[in-house]
Amino acid sequence: MKTLYDQIRSSFVRQNFLALLGAELESVEPGQVVISCRRREDLTQQQGFLHGGLVTSIADVTCGYTALTVIPEGQEVLTVEFKINLLRPVTGRKIIAAGSVIKAGKSLVITEAEVTDADSGKIVAKMLATMIPAARKEEAV
Amino acid sequence: MKTLYDQIRSSFVRQNFLALLGAELESVEPGQVVISCRRREDLTQQQGFLHGGLVTSIADVTCGYTALTVIPEGQEVLTVEFKINLLRPVTGRKIIAAGSVIKAGKSLVITEAEVTDADSGKIVAKMLATMIPAARKEEAV
Amino acid sequence: MKTLYDQIRSSFVRQNFLALLGAELESVEPGQVVISCRRREDLTQQQGFLHGGLVTSIADVTCGYTALTVIPEGQEVLTVEFKINLLRPVTGRKIIAAGSVIKAGKSLVITEAEVTDADSGKIVAKMLATMIPAARKEEAV
Amino acid sequence: MKTLYDQIRSSFVRQNFLALLGAELESVEPGQVVISCRRREDLTQQQGFLHGGLVTSIADVTCGYTALTVIPEGQEVLTVEFKINLLRPVTGRKIIAAGSVIKAGKSLVITEAEVTDADSGKIVAKMLATMIPAARKEEAV
Repeated sequence: MKTLYDQIRSSFVRQNFLALLGAELESVEPGQVVISCRRREDLTQQQGFLHGGLVTSIADVTCGYTALTVIPEGQEVLTVEFKINLLRPVTGRKIIAAGSVIKAGKSLVITEAEVTDADSGKIVAKMLATMIPAARKEEAV
Repeated sequence: MKTLYDQIRSSFVRQNFLALLGAELESVEPGQVVISCRRREDLTQQQGFLHGGLVTSIADVTCGYTALTVIPEGQEVLTVEFKINLLRPVTGRKIIAAGSVIKAGKSLVITEAEVTDADSGKIVAKMLATMIPAARKEEAV
Repeated sequence: MKTLYDQIRSSFVRQNFLALLGAELESVEPGQVVISCRRREDLTQQQGFLHGGLVTSIADVTCGYTALTVIPEGQEVLTVEFKINLLRPVTGRKIIAAGSVIKAGKSLVITEAEVTDADSGKIVAKMLATMIPAARKEEAV
Repeated sequence: MKTLYDQIRSSFVRQNFLALLGAELESVEPGQVVISCRRREDLTQQQGFLHGGLVTSIADVTCGYTALTVIPEGQEVLTVEFKINLLRPVTGRKIIAAGSVIKAGKSLVITEAEVTDADSGKIVAKMLATMIPAARKEEAV
């Protein structure tokens, strides 16, 4: 029988974009998922910081899988929307995104994620996201 | 003398992350920037759609450069925060993000971007973003 | 037979909070609703500007009714979430919020609203909102 | 010498809109402010729930004063933007909004607030907000 980690991982490894970014699934608990990403020079912006789009992508995926842990097995999760505050430029060698569930409802799952610079230990981004189980969505909304 | 397009482009080409994604600077006018990105299989998620993180990164960069066109030359722009609604799964061969300025203030520039699926012509995402000129920011905020 | 304006108005007048604020339903078209609110001294904050919470409430209600015009009659609309940028302090005698539909999907309706200071004609706020038809929601989400 | 509570309160009582809503300043600590609001029938929407605009206004003010506790005395705080997820309809007799600082930067203060239904103890809303000290803002942005 597949564990929750296995269920999430089997979806994670099918996302080509995550492989491109070098994202790594760190841990999976019900309502809590942690994903990391190591700094690479091709993930930076013009000032040498990790790109905000990279930080955002990691946070979004973290929110998505966090939501996936609290919906019935077999369903997919799609992002309806999210907001992210980018708090500090990222100079460390790795970022760590930790997601948690705020509210798992019948139609939607509301999650949040905090992204931390693994070297400094400081928070670099905060996201608040609305996810929808895919069985209820034929289109993105 | 550098045109506005040249100024934006000289920053654009220094962003390694944009090269990784294959983003292309389509056009630059004061207060309006258009950036596109062609579909590649390594930019997709588990259902074969273009990843929401990719769509978001293109929209964010578009908002950033749109803001850059309305601030004094020589300054950088950093993203304070943004919200994005992902409206439809992206199946087309290219996405086109068009940014515009809502309000260019003394401290902040508020922009929005619409991302369209070039094949269907339909809007796939809408972003509302807050940008800050970098001279006023030592950290991301 | 009730017109679209009548349908919206019959819901509008049942909202005690809107009566408290002095909100007025200006016009209703499919996918476009306009609501206004006159300045009163009890709607201001400590610097004498119209309160951001007042501006936001008017924008939210405008987004909600805009969504209501594109869903089947008999259903209610509830706000899932929204983001608003407050762009300028409001000093004019009236604000006008104009809403429009970005995407009317099966599960959710995505809308936006622009709020204008009627005296200066300038935009004072921009909102991007996610609404859900109430038949699909037993709780707010 | 004025305590932090006194400083916040002297601004709070000058906001006419807060008096209209019946908001109450519960507690003030550095980086943490709690504000409540009792249910009144004139604060409701058409289904009898506390209006989302009311919940949002209380959360926004809470975020604003939370930010005010971490900036130099004598400055004001203005809301740049915020996003709020409305999680549950509010049926209780009082809501309680608790704000905290995510990042106090040189130019901006990023805060969040959770609003709880005092009767059920359940979270009814979550806000993520960007505030700016007023000395740096001639307009809202």
